[in-house]
Amino acid sequence: MADEVILLNFWPSMFGMRTMIALEEKNVKYDYKEEDLSNKSSVLLEMNPVHTKIPVLIHNGKPVCESLIQIEYIDEVWPDKNPLLPSDPYERAHAKFWADFIDKKVNVTARRIWAKKGEEQEASKEFIEILKTLESELGDKNYFGDETFGYVDIALIGFYSWFGAYNKFGNISIESECPKLIEWAKRCVKRESVAKALPESYKVTMFVSALRKKRLGLE
Amino acid sequence: MADEVILLNFWPSMFGMRTMIALEEKNVKYDYKEEDLSNKSSVLLEMNPVHTKIPVLIHNGKPVCESLIQIEYIDEVWPDKNPLLPSDPYERAHAKFWADFIDKKVNVTARRIWAKKGEEQEASKEFIEILKTLESELGDKNYFGDETFGYVDIALIGFYSWFGAYNKFGNISIESECPKLIEWAKRCVKRESVAKALPESYKVTMFVSALRKKRLGLE
Repeated sequence: MADEVILLNFWPSMFGMRTMIALEEKNVKYDYKEEDLSNKSSVLLEMNPVHTKIPVLIHNGKPVCESLIQIEYIDEVWPDKNPLLPSDPYERAHAKFWADFIDKKVNVTARRIWAKKGEEQEASKEFIEILKTLESELGDKNYFGDETFGYVDIALIGFYSWFGAYNKFGNISIESECPKLIEWAKRCVKRESVAKALPESYKVTMFVSALRKKRLGLE
Repeated sequence: MADEVILLNFWPSMFGMRTMIALEEKNVKYDYKEEDLSNKSSVLLEMNPVHTKIPVLIHNGKPVCESLIQIEYIDEVWPDKNPLLPSDPYERAHAKFWADFIDKKVNVTARRIWAKKGEEQEASKEFIEILKTLESELGDKNYFGDETFGYVDIALIGFYSWFGAYNKFGNISIESECPKLIEWAKRCVKRESVAKALPESYKVTMFVSALRKKRLGLE
């Protein structure tokens, strides 16, 4: 029996982008289903009843939730092509540490740039510090996993499509603050898997702009 | 060469308890080093420079940070005795989902019970709902991993030593709200690994009481 793989997603989600990239890296064919988050589908409510959040990966009828867990699952189920996590336990733990750092720090701080009135300046400053920490971990390597594009790269690269919005609403220039990280991002975007998964930056900026207007009454 | 294993910890930490339990389950001998969090050791600052938090597991000189990552690392490095994570990818993802749920929901809400003035009542209500969700996931199973004590049990059981404090400061009775979860906890505590790692409940309550007095001026 062929695998039935379905992804419930919402296009600007950097978390959904992770799962798309992982599936593409493994060359897994899947059905993409766009969710309307203001009117969630019964499938989403049934498949992720605890959080009712996207992305949800449904493999042969069974749901896997949380994007980092999805990447690990995809890597374990389709191990033959492009390993995403290192095989050495210490290197695996190291990669998981940085993915966890991205989840705990990058998104939380980034949201404060565009979604909290009056916190833009402080959040932007913190955000640049967080990116600098990541840039320092990257060092002179091509990818976070050294020569191989993998788990940590996948965890971070989706945010790149939001950098335009962070620059605009945080009044910053990520490119001048973190040039090496931008070089890394441009390197990643050359991969077909990443190019397919990331929306164009201006579309994300328009989306964020509309959200700010609706939620915060801000232009 | 024998393995050199060191754990930097602070005794009331439910996160550190996880790592202690995992090490005990694998029968790994280790050096326990208590940290003074108001005056962190140079070893802690050097081994976890990003978060400067405990627990830190140091294996042959190399640090592994974040308790869930430590459990996975321990399970991978010492695979022979008491597997902690299921071997099936779907079951692994399922276990990781619930451990992630515990990290995202249980601790955050529990802290609001005793560490935020005026939020006790709302936080206590939410906390009970979260425990009921976990109780429903447990169902009639002996452990979260069915017949085998494992990853999710380890992720949650440390909080049990804090239940007395939550009851007291949240003015709740977890035992009457979630009797099956308490039965599960009592079952876990019978294991030597858990009994060794969990401090006595009254000591945690005294610790929390002193913290509230110091930080919030509350009795």
